[in-house]
Amino acid sequence: MKMIKNALGRLIPAETDGKMNIPFKGVGKHQPEGRKAGAPIPSEANYTDKVVKNLDAALDRMHLFDGMTVSFHHHLRDGDFLVNLVMKKLDERGYKDLVLAPSALFPVHEPMVELIKKGTISHVIGSMNGPIGKLCTTGGMKKTAILRSHGGRYRAIQDGDLKIDAAFIAAPTADVHGNANGVHGPSACGPLGFALADSLYADQVVVVTDNLVPFPTWPWSIQGGNVDYIVPIEKLGIPEKIVSGTTRITEEPDRLKIAAMAAQLVKDAGLLDEAEFSFQAGAGGISLAFLQYLSGYMREKKVVADFVRGGSNKIVVDMLKEGLTKFILDGQSFDLAGVQSLRDNWNHIETNPFVSYNYHSKRCFASRVKVAVLGATEIDLDFNVNVNTHSDGWLLHGIGGFQDSADAYITIITAPLYRKTFPIVVERVHTITAPGAVIDVLVTDHGMAINPGRQDLLDRVKRSDLPIVTMEQLYEKAAGFTGKLPPVRTKDHVAALIEWRDGTVIDCVREIDQS
Amino acid sequence: MKMIKNALGRLIPAETDGKMNIPFKGVGKHQPEGRKAGAPIPSEANYTDKVVKNLDAALDRMHLFDGMTVSFHHHLRDGDFLVNLVMKKLDERGYKDLVLAPSALFPVHEPMVELIKKGTISHVIGSMNGPIGKLCTTGGMKKTAILRSHGGRYRAIQDGDLKIDAAFIAAPTADVHGNANGVHGPSACGPLGFALADSLYADQVVVVTDNLVPFPTWPWSIQGGNVDYIVPIEKLGIPEKIVSGTTRITEEPDRLKIAAMAAQLVKDAGLLDEAEFSFQAGAGGISLAFLQYLSGYMREKKVVADFVRGGSNKIVVDMLKEGLTKFILDGQSFDLAGVQSLRDNWNHIETNPFVSYNYHSKRCFASRVKVAVLGATEIDLDFNVNVNTHSDGWLLHGIGGFQDSADAYITIITAPLYRKTFPIVVERVHTITAPGAVIDVLVTDHGMAINPGRQDLLDRVKRSDLPIVTMEQLYEKAAGFTGKLPPVRTKDHVAALIEWRDGTVIDCVREIDQS
Repeated sequence: MKMIKNALGRLIPAETDGKMNIPFKGVGKHQPEGRKAGAPIPSEANYTDKVVKNLDAALDRMHLFDGMTVSFHHHLRDGDFLVNLVMKKLDERGYKDLVLAPSALFPVHEPMVELIKKGTISHVIGSMNGPIGKLCTTGGMKKTAILRSHGGRYRAIQDGDLKIDAAFIAAPTADVHGNANGVHGPSACGPLGFALADSLYADQVVVVTDNLVPFPTWPWSIQGGNVDYIVPIEKLGIPEKIVSGTTRITEEPDRLKIAAMAAQLVKDAGLLDEAEFSFQAGAGGISLAFLQYLSGYMREKKVVADFVRGGSNKIVVDMLKEGLTKFILDGQSFDLAGVQSLRDNWNHIETNPFVSYNYHSKRCFASRVKVAVLGATEIDLDFNVNVNTHSDGWLLHGIGGFQDSADAYITIITAPLYRKTFPIVVERVHTITAPGAVIDVLVTDHGMAINPGRQDLLDRVKRSDLPIVTMEQLYEKAAGFTGKLPPVRTKDHVAALIEWRDGTVIDCVREIDQS
Repeated sequence: MKMIKNALGRLIPAETDGKMNIPFKGVGKHQPEGRKAGAPIPSEANYTDKVVKNLDAALDRMHLFDGMTVSFHHHLRDGDFLVNLVMKKLDERGYKDLVLAPSALFPVHEPMVELIKKGTISHVIGSMNGPIGKLCTTGGMKKTAILRSHGGRYRAIQDGDLKIDAAFIAAPTADVHGNANGVHGPSACGPLGFALADSLYADQVVVVTDNLVPFPTWPWSIQGGNVDYIVPIEKLGIPEKIVSGTTRITEEPDRLKIAAMAAQLVKDAGLLDEAEFSFQAGAGGISLAFLQYLSGYMREKKVVADFVRGGSNKIVVDMLKEGLTKFILDGQSFDLAGVQSLRDNWNHIETNPFVSYNYHSKRCFASRVKVAVLGATEIDLDFNVNVNTHSDGWLLHGIGGFQDSADAYITIITAPLYRKTFPIVVERVHTITAPGAVIDVLVTDHGMAINPGRQDLLDRVKRSDLPIVTMEQLYEKAAGFTGKLPPVRTKDHVAALIEWRDGTVIDCVREIDQS
């Protein structure tokens, strides 16, 4: 296989499954060409009766074929029934070499492992995790997997790099016209934005719902004018696994310390004293604690954020109610409070990867976020971050919104300095998910490092009492606790490509050598 | 010029300005092929600074050329400054043969006449009225004009039949990201849906606003990710001509009688006794009176509409507040009450021609409307309707949403039997805007006729005391008042095509022979 070197010095395959790869050229360096993809032009004359009896009735009427690409969104998370249900039916119908193109997969989707082994599914494009990622890293897929960020997935569909033949959209509520949303119904999940690109660009779009209502339901996260079939189903998933009933902030002292330092950095950098302020924080324990500390500072300084970028949860909803932010711009709701707020508060706004994360747009709002607090599995001396593979080489996580939200004015990685026997700071990450150029700070329980490329930020905090050290110092300290990492033994075979959000290949994941 | 006959027997040019025409084949008979158009793929890297100083600064940076197609929306109606301003600047810059593609034009746009005569504008595609229509009918355009309905315009842009090189979007509010809406600001107009297709498909998109605000404004009728430049301007238009301050119901007894009969027809047909009810009525005096009579019946029968299709105005807003309808689905606001309600009421929903009117979708909601009450300039013995030309042959009106809303379950035309010396019911309309197949009822001040093709409707009202007669009887009665119409003398030259909403040509308008 011919390998080429990208701008980060990583070797990537020149070609994958018949398609030429574009090597990563540096942030903002790749200039795309051509025009956006377009779905087939339909005529309303063929859509007089879109509500079908059940999933089989829809499949009977659809154009299905070996090798087709089928897509799903992951708003139902680990509570989702639909992926397994549809793929099982396609398997029973004898289809082969299907390309599974979900926006993410969860442990509940483990049955896909069997379908990949069996040949029903040839490979996964988009995202995967856990057991399916493990299978991928052992070379268990017939073709090369491609991992994309949430924004990268939208881009790929929009740009025609990922053509979806059939999109199956789990819809907590749909009306008989095909309009669908995630805020009503027993399987309410919040936004449905991860399915937007699928609905706009797929050749065939099926909305599956356990809450079919008369026209019109509102909001129209998915628009009926893009939907071929509406399938009523008894139950889309397990509500308590779709959204958590409660949100728990970490109580571990080390993690609280990391969160407190990240919040202090925001304050000490003067971001709370400027005209515009906004931030993004995930649903993890450190992120939630960060929000608590940050809101303390905001109250103190009487700061009102222009917006909070969600993943929404009770903490940011409480901030909205308290008036600490004007808006929540929400890509997914992590708990019931988030879902309810999205449904009830006009200034809690549903977003999708086009408006939030698509780099091939005339600007998405990721770059308008002032502070993003994100996690990582590894970070190296060049501030390159790995969120996909563990230090032992196993591909266990998707990219999620990482690459996209790292476009914030200040991107802060929070992580313990080491996990068990694995250092988080390493000399060279096993897999580059995001280049150091977009990573500004690492905050650990043993001090923090600021990217030397961000002299402006270093200047901002020069009077701070925060324990700011160099990445090299953190690296040495981590190695002192865990010892240096043994090299991961891999084969030449490339199991998966890691795409940067502009469609170029930033790295690849090789099959692990288990001999 | 080679002429071909369409399914209604009308002769249309086989070819127009180098493009083959598809003759109208009958409602729902044309099956489109191919895929939707796509805008150029942008990279966010090129959009770091989108807010420019003024319109000239935007024009300086744009790719402008002779023969390019420039587009505008008409939400600012007769109060709009933007069309004249932009076209004047393009004229001053010396561009020639521009194609003007507005969603509608108003009397305020009369200066375009001079630019057409001068050659700055070659022709108009989309819609026109008054003086520009008059110029067109005298053969004053260099190329053949094309008239499309609101839905047909969206379809044409989506299908790639109308490629827009530069869209100029008047935005009563825009944020620095390019998100725009029509509900805030001094030039508030209500929805901005007529500009949606332009924003999605045009090569270059310019948002012009007299209310530039920080990110984020909400709602995002136009999304910043589709916008190249944001231009602040002092004043977009004249507020009192953008929306009327008040809404006036007709007081003329003949018109009140027509409105009362139309409402009684809805009741007598049993539509208020069924599970689903919805309706659409325009902003004209008869339509407003119809709403008053209808809401009387609804109160009496305790009927709550599933939705009202707006054009919104104070009367439908009052119905929403009173609980007579669950939703207003609003394409344009005709008065201040409509704008305010759209801004403040969650169940007053902004729509656009994709969701409401686009026939080349997997169904828009026009066909879900139970009753549409519309006006006409002529209707003939086959129930064909003309809304474009007057009986003397002058092209004075655009199609508006006529063809689209005529897809309602029951489409009612309300009109006086004659206007001055012109009968409304004629043997053969001068121009067919919509085929009789989609027109169900004509209600005049001298009785009403039901399309014999709607036996189901005739059955529904057989016990009604409404003055139901045949179209032939109305025709004879009208002729009795006005005498028969003299034939319109036209030349062979085709000045404009009338497109049916599916992209086929339903009729054409010939140059008037003034010799």
